[in-house]
Amino acid sequence: MRRERVRALLEDVAAGRASIDQALAHLDAAPVEDLGFANIDHHRALRAGYPEVVFGEGKTVEQTVIICERLTAQGDGFLVTRSSEAQRIALAAKFPAVSLNALARTARLAGSATPASSVVKKALIVTAGTSDLPVSEEAVETLLALGLGVARLTDVGVAGIHRILAQHDALRDAAVVIVVAGMDGALPSVVGGLVRVPVIAVPTSVGYGASFEGLSALLAMLNSCAAGVTVCNIDNGFGAAMAAARILNAP
Amino acid sequence: MRRERVRALLEDVAAGRASIDQALAHLDAAPVEDLGFANIDHHRALRAGYPEVVFGEGKTVEQTVIICERLTAQGDGFLVTRSSEAQRIALAAKFPAVSLNALARTARLAGSATPASSVVKKALIVTAGTSDLPVSEEAVETLLALGLGVARLTDVGVAGIHRILAQHDALRDAAVVIVVAGMDGALPSVVGGLVRVPVIAVPTSVGYGASFEGLSALLAMLNSCAAGVTVCNIDNGFGAAMAAARILNAP
Amino acid sequence: MRRERVRALLEDVAAGRASIDQALAHLDAAPVEDLGFANIDHHRALRAGYPEVVFGEGKTVEQTVIICERLTAQGDGFLVTRSSEAQRIALAAKFPAVSLNALARTARLAGSATPASSVVKKALIVTAGTSDLPVSEEAVETLLALGLGVARLTDVGVAGIHRILAQHDALRDAAVVIVVAGMDGALPSVVGGLVRVPVIAVPTSVGYGASFEGLSALLAMLNSCAAGVTVCNIDNGFGAAMAAARILNAP
Amino acid sequence: MRRERVRALLEDVAAGRASIDQALAHLDAAPVEDLGFANIDHHRALRAGYPEVVFGEGKTVEQTVIICERLTAQGDGFLVTRSSEAQRIALAAKFPAVSLNALARTARLAGSATPASSVVKKALIVTAGTSDLPVSEEAVETLLALGLGVARLTDVGVAGIHRILAQHDALRDAAVVIVVAGMDGALPSVVGGLVRVPVIAVPTSVGYGASFEGLSALLAMLNSCAAGVTVCNIDNGFGAAMAAARILNAP
Amino acid sequence: MRRERVRALLEDVAAGRASIDQALAHLDAAPVEDLGFANIDHHRALRAGYPEVVFGEGKTVEQTVIICERLTAQGDGFLVTRSSEAQRIALAAKFPAVSLNALARTARLAGSATPASSVVKKALIVTAGTSDLPVSEEAVETLLALGLGVARLTDVGVAGIHRILAQHDALRDAAVVIVVAGMDGALPSVVGGLVRVPVIAVPTSVGYGASFEGLSALLAMLNSCAAGVTVCNIDNGFGAAMAAARILNAP
Amino acid sequence: MRRERVRALLEDVAAGRASIDQALAHLDAAPVEDLGFANIDHHRALRAGYPEVVFGEGKTVEQTVIICERLTAQGDGFLVTRSSEAQRIALAAKFPAVSLNALARTARLAGSATPASSVVKKALIVTAGTSDLPVSEEAVETLLALGLGVARLTDVGVAGIHRILAQHDALRDAAVVIVVAGMDGALPSVVGGLVRVPVIAVPTSVGYGASFEGLSALLAMLNSCAAGVTVCNIDNGFGAAMAAARILNAP
Amino acid sequence: MRRERVRALLEDVAAGRASIDQALAHLDAAPVEDLGFANIDHHRALRAGYPEVVFGEGKTVEQTVIICERLTAQGDGFLVTRSSEAQRIALAAKFPAVSLNALARTARLAGSATPASSVVKKALIVTAGTSDLPVSEEAVETLLALGLGVARLTDVGVAGIHRILAQHDALRDAAVVIVVAGMDGALPSVVGGLVRVPVIAVPTSVGYGASFEGLSALLAMLNSCAAGVTVCNIDNGFGAAMAAARILNAP
Amino acid sequence: MRRERVRALLEDVAAGRASIDQALAHLDAAPVEDLGFANIDHHRALRAGYPEVVFGEGKTVEQTVIICERLTAQGDGFLVTRSSEAQRIALAAKFPAVSLNALARTARLAGSATPASSVVKKALIVTAGTSDLPVSEEAVETLLALGLGVARLTDVGVAGIHRILAQHDALRDAAVVIVVAGMDGALPSVVGGLVRVPVIAVPTSVGYGASFEGLSALLAMLNSCAAGVTVCNIDNGFGAAMAAARILNAP
Repeated sequence: MRRERVRALLEDVAAGRASIDQALAHLDAAPVEDLGFANIDHHRALRAGYPEVVFGEGKTVEQTVIICERLTAQGDGFLVTRSSEAQRIALAAKFPAVSLNALARTARLAGSATPASSVVKKALIVTAGTSDLPVSEEAVETLLALGLGVARLTDVGVAGIHRILAQHDALRDAAVVIVVAGMDGALPSVVGGLVRVPVIAVPTSVGYGASFEGLSALLAMLNSCAAGVTVCNIDNGFGAAMAAARILNAP
Repeated sequence: MRRERVRALLEDVAAGRASIDQALAHLDAAPVEDLGFANIDHHRALRAGYPEVVFGEGKTVEQTVIICERLTAQGDGFLVTRSSEAQRIALAAKFPAVSLNALARTARLAGSATPASSVVKKALIVTAGTSDLPVSEEAVETLLALGLGVARLTDVGVAGIHRILAQHDALRDAAVVIVVAGMDGALPSVVGGLVRVPVIAVPTSVGYGASFEGLSALLAMLNSCAAGVTVCNIDNGFGAAMAAARILNAP
Repeated sequence: MRRERVRALLEDVAAGRASIDQALAHLDAAPVEDLGFANIDHHRALRAGYPEVVFGEGKTVEQTVIICERLTAQGDGFLVTRSSEAQRIALAAKFPAVSLNALARTARLAGSATPASSVVKKALIVTAGTSDLPVSEEAVETLLALGLGVARLTDVGVAGIHRILAQHDALRDAAVVIVVAGMDGALPSVVGGLVRVPVIAVPTSVGYGASFEGLSALLAMLNSCAAGVTVCNIDNGFGAAMAAARILNAP
Repeated sequence: MRRERVRALLEDVAAGRASIDQALAHLDAAPVEDLGFANIDHHRALRAGYPEVVFGEGKTVEQTVIICERLTAQGDGFLVTRSSEAQRIALAAKFPAVSLNALARTARLAGSATPASSVVKKALIVTAGTSDLPVSEEAVETLLALGLGVARLTDVGVAGIHRILAQHDALRDAAVVIVVAGMDGALPSVVGGLVRVPVIAVPTSVGYGASFEGLSALLAMLNSCAAGVTVCNIDNGFGAAMAAARILNAP
Repeated sequence: MRRERVRALLEDVAAGRASIDQALAHLDAAPVEDLGFANIDHHRALRAGYPEVVFGEGKTVEQTVIICERLTAQGDGFLVTRSSEAQRIALAAKFPAVSLNALARTARLAGSATPASSVVKKALIVTAGTSDLPVSEEAVETLLALGLGVARLTDVGVAGIHRILAQHDALRDAAVVIVVAGMDGALPSVVGGLVRVPVIAVPTSVGYGASFEGLSALLAMLNSCAAGVTVCNIDNGFGAAMAAARILNAP
Repeated sequence: MRRERVRALLEDVAAGRASIDQALAHLDAAPVEDLGFANIDHHRALRAGYPEVVFGEGKTVEQTVIICERLTAQGDGFLVTRSSEAQRIALAAKFPAVSLNALARTARLAGSATPASSVVKKALIVTAGTSDLPVSEEAVETLLALGLGVARLTDVGVAGIHRILAQHDALRDAAVVIVVAGMDGALPSVVGGLVRVPVIAVPTSVGYGASFEGLSALLAMLNSCAAGVTVCNIDNGFGAAMAAARILNAP
Repeated sequence: MRRERVRALLEDVAAGRASIDQALAHLDAAPVEDLGFANIDHHRALRAGYPEVVFGEGKTVEQTVIICERLTAQGDGFLVTRSSEAQRIALAAKFPAVSLNALARTARLAGSATPASSVVKKALIVTAGTSDLPVSEEAVETLLALGLGVARLTDVGVAGIHRILAQHDALRDAAVVIVVAGMDGALPSVVGGLVRVPVIAVPTSVGYGASFEGLSALLAMLNSCAAGVTVCNIDNGFGAAMAAARILNAP
Repeated sequence: MRRERVRALLEDVAAGRASIDQALAHLDAAPVEDLGFANIDHHRALRAGYPEVVFGEGKTVEQTVIICERLTAQGDGFLVTRSSEAQRIALAAKFPAVSLNALARTARLAGSATPASSVVKKALIVTAGTSDLPVSEEAVETLLALGLGVARLTDVGVAGIHRILAQHDALRDAAVVIVVAGMDGALPSVVGGLVRVPVIAVPTSVGYGASFEGLSALLAMLNSCAAGVTVCNIDNGFGAAMAAARILNAP
């Protein structure tokens, strides 16, 4: 609840329009709907700039559908990430307009208030190899769900350094760059040296044995020799997109 | 060397103003000064938006002073991070105008082109505990070296959650927030839920045994339950400031 | 065997009511029933305050049923944790009164001596997200098996800090708080700053890649900046409940 | 600020005894003293049941002394943990009544409101080996600072199992047991099987190479086969004592 | 090839009974049969005291059967460890006299020279919990394959310390003790303090999350506070038995 | 694009045979075919000495076949590593001449320019145990795809040290040795002491629990006491072969 | 206290020679001398076959001397391991007959009952490199303190495999072999394949970066491809000697 | 001892020029000089192509000097790596012609047979940053000790990708490339894509916290996306040079 709301409440109490117990009740109340297995935060869009996103893993098909129903009942759209195929099928049956992306494992529905995708400020998603696409596609879907602009560069890893160097136009046009890479996690360091805008690195769990499910790429990115590169969790395309949204949504 | 420069070079060749071998020589040349032990990149300010920053560790006092002399000889200022006391003393003897910060372990000298610190868009540095100050001060010094606006909140860790909640004005005024915390690394998750702007988390090596020199805070921050928080290397106040600069310098 | 029993035995020997060899036999005997594949400790309730709990993993269906039969043959109830569906089906067929909880993976049967659930001193189970429910439900089932009072708060993670702050009544009424969280493991630090009673943190294996199956949350909790928070093994709702029982059962 | 205080404030507003802006100012104010390098939380004793404890590491001698002066200026005593010898010497010069414990690395001063040490409910500190004493002494000092009862068992590791078995009287008299051990971390499992009261395990960084600075003992304790044992951070005698205090202070 | 054999060879050369090239050929030859996918070492029994044991994992059913056929063709028996069910079925079809142990995942056939199991010097296999039985049974099968004496103690973990203390007769009769335990790995430390004979600790991958597939037990055992306990690889019941055999077979 | 090509381009511009914009277009163009999901680098053979190798994991059957079609359309052959059985079946249907190796998980097709396998300079693949064969076979297939000479030594681990010592002829004939071993990773140290040529060590994920999926062997090999042994990623037979090719292809 | 002693006590009670309270007192008493900072176990020699060994690290000079005085007051000798130079100087001043070994960091004094060193059954200490000598010398000193026979092989690492192969006489004469190695930890695998007697591997913290203070050698040894090799803690020469003593002292 | 030597020995025996016992003695003898604390392998140059290199760490000044004296007594030169300043001073006093390199921590003396440095085939040492120079200088010194050709590129990390791209001449002239880098370890991937010759990557312990003393760079290099890059131990410039020597010395 925002500060202006507290001031109004105190004015009501001062004017006798509200009793003390009513005011206490309001201060206690939270804009949260309790479903038993989850608390839906309907004020998140007001407060944080985007509606609640549903993390599909560890939720049953039924729980997933119910949460999405409550979100749409409030006029919000939804984005479900890390969804199973069963969850996506159930959502498609309930919401015919939903966009499914099997590679990204997402289901996305626009809300009444979702803005059309921007063409002015774009996030550029740079992907090192084909095997990293599930993660970069999750980032793409999340940005689309937020109504933000997206461009892509794919399969431009540093072992063939000319591939990324050839893309100066795409790099120059980006307002923020998300770099998705597994194995040696080297690409963000090169990109970070080529652009002045924010660079968000996403390690992926792609690679042979000593990639240790993305740990190697994660550590390399945290140690990027290009100053000012920041890092998300392994395979967390969603988180990278949310970080990009925080940057793109700045006034 | 930027693309415009290549076009001009080609025009010279076409017009006969430059021979092919001269053009090749230019294409070969890099705007880099070779000191034997280091290559100074004098074009970095043009290309990346900030001059080269000197990492003090592993360099001798002599190497450090020579690099700073070459930078100032080009009209640049300098920032030395992770400097030893001996390095700082030598720099102060050579450059009387230098700003030393023993806590942050930095030496900073404004260049002729360093802009005055902005008052419009500020980075807010939020520090969990007193022991984290060396890292947050390194971030502050770096932002000042880049001519960017800075504000501070200190000792507002989550075990006394009212401390950060009481600071809504400071949080509301920030264009980007850097959160510096050791131990459980929990503060960025709370801050990330309170603000809509970018949040950059910096784990510190502060804590008892199982903090494992900052690993625990690092992992917690990578797993932040607040969406869109990104993470820097352990104790890397410099890197966090550079990431903030990428955001604040956006057109 | 308790000290009073030893004194009684010595008195019998002194009075000639028992021979030396009889006494030695008693001192050798342990209140343990050997099933070949397991030793059931029938005196545990006397000694430790609760009957033996059966860890389902790595036991066959047959072994599980036999152990439960021997426990009920002694008048004890039982609790089976980490049970497979097959184990639960077999137990339900043998013990129609058993309570099955698929989410918690438990099977529970009250013994003749299980006390009714207390309403005076309650353990409060605080869960960060919906995905953490299997672990918190295991804690709930264990507390119920021990006849202790339980209350729940669900989906109150720190990214929406107002959710836990709104629950001061529930927090105030708890005699001990179990906090179940994955990802950044930040919730116990906030709760530990809000209550004076014991706080037991349980990390869960919920999260993206760098959660490393709960390691990140575990480390964060061990480094909690709220003093006096203690930690259980990853996903160990059972252990947390047993720790709470040690506290609630204090005279 | 507690809920009763909010109610009183609202009554003042309703009665016209306070203006809305005055009320807002009170709601904004936090009971925290800002020293520039630290925020002292003077209400912690009211809220959490004990005054703020000063973590000495990473603080200068001057910062440490100033914080202690401000605490005593409010009538509180203080406890400084992980203090350096220089810090302790400075504190002794300023506060002649301070108790220094070089082994525990603590400085302790009773406040006007520190209760006398209880003789009714005692925490028992069980230490596996002589090398673990710095950690267990830190726990002892912390409990004394809180006015709680303490007993000790020293050098009773499991390799000579009769040593702990011989101490049934001490074990029986404890309201809570803190078990401090390095190396194999096995002692809490044995103690946890011998007592019904809460057992708090503290791993220490004592041992040969593969103890990995306490990691081995930590992991062993988290995996204790005695149900309901909880664990603190490595070498964190302070934290274990605070956890014990939460238990002993229960109504 | 043993030294006596070399001497005989040299005598043959000196006496003209063998040519230099024949001698070289003998020195080159190794007592190994090359199957393409494996080299069977038929002299191992002579040299090392036991025939080659077949590690089933990563071998096809066909490879497994062929190796066993070649071993029996030389009059040796065989032991296959870590066998799949398919491997065991195929071996039983080929060798009707084979002993299969599904829990231990072994197939064992006595050779013509396998000694009858000793009753004089026995290895005692002590197992902490029922879930550890697959590992301890692998040790048992291996000892039986070598014709050595075996005794068992099962489900005697340290949380009920009286269980192992009650077994002094079994402990006293052992010439070597193998202790198999997961979770906290505490049992070898207690056993090591109770007996004077060699103690071989085997960590198992049994336990909740932070057991990290046996790493916790492994580290605890390496740090055993009982002097002179040695450790095998995780779940390596075979290796422990081989170490026991080296001890029991001493002249 | 190689330097000679740039010189030719500049000569064209100087002579008026090419406009500036044409030259810029050529400098921008990269010899890469964009398939949407992948960029195929058709110039790799010219630049790096071998055609692009297709990493099968994480690619669909369709993507795999399309990439191979485009490669063969350019006259190249192909090698697919880490292929699934479905991928191999689809490739065999499309390319009847393909060589499939289920153990190595490869599909290989000679290109028009693939040289016949050399008999002069050979890479020797030394394998410690039968379970390591999938990795060493991947190396073999890769070397054959590159037209290089190969020899094999199998099942010559150090526990029977005479097995490798007996193979001095094979060792002497090798121009480079690839040593594939899991478990203790000891074999490269022995081989490195026996030969003067380059030794490339490949750890495999073969072994009991504390092999940690090849980490133990990897660390041992990095710490080889034989000077000048270098190491590849775990299970990376392909990478080892590529490293050998760099050596064998030297002029 | 041994079982015979309990029988005697019961006979005294039965005969009226001891009261029940006297018997209880005896059963309570432990053969341990409490020094406040340590419990000395004077019966260890009877029970475990060797007197208590003093671990010097973490003990003050004074504590070390006092413990040694109490041990010699009982007629025992002593062995202090991991001693500081200050501790050794103090011990030499107090006990002129003490043997100091600076390389092994030990101080050793024979007790009245220490047997003369055996010449029949010897432990062979095999050391890979000169840098490993501190660890192997600790093992040697410990064996001498126990009156056991010792032989040494030094600097016989596997990179020069002929060095260990040349020592068949020494290997043949050993009743047990302790192998001390850092770096790749490969030597125990080779030795384990050459001898039939027990092999105890001791990893050392010797090596470059990725030796991780002995972790690499430790893991390699746990994964030894020679069956029946067991492992001690890193740098734990003492523990290896104690394990050897358990074997050599067998009847 | 080489095979030819064995043949000659057998011929002597056959011809009666040597008795059997003399032959046995020769077969027993190893070309190793035993100094008590070390075995010097005087035949290494014959067998492995280079004389024994002395690892300074963990050796006393006296041991170091003695080993060097014995090596020079045989006509060999020496190279001491990881030497302390004291070791270097002592060596300079004894051997006035020695070359000391404080940055590389080496002492080097040419032997009578050391070849002059080649100008035909050169190893190129590429260093990412100034802080990596101690490691790359160790590689340089080792190559010089072996009489091999060396070239250097310094401070060419990937964050300024044009720096390495500008060096095509140096890259083209190299017969083997050693790439030394800390932090993100990205440089070998770029270099590996630019050259066809062997690339040996050396991670250094340079970087902020999460570089974990070089672990991050090590893992990145093992996961290099440029095929055929091999890796040495952290900070192991010596090992990389030895690997390069194996390549350069190929016939």
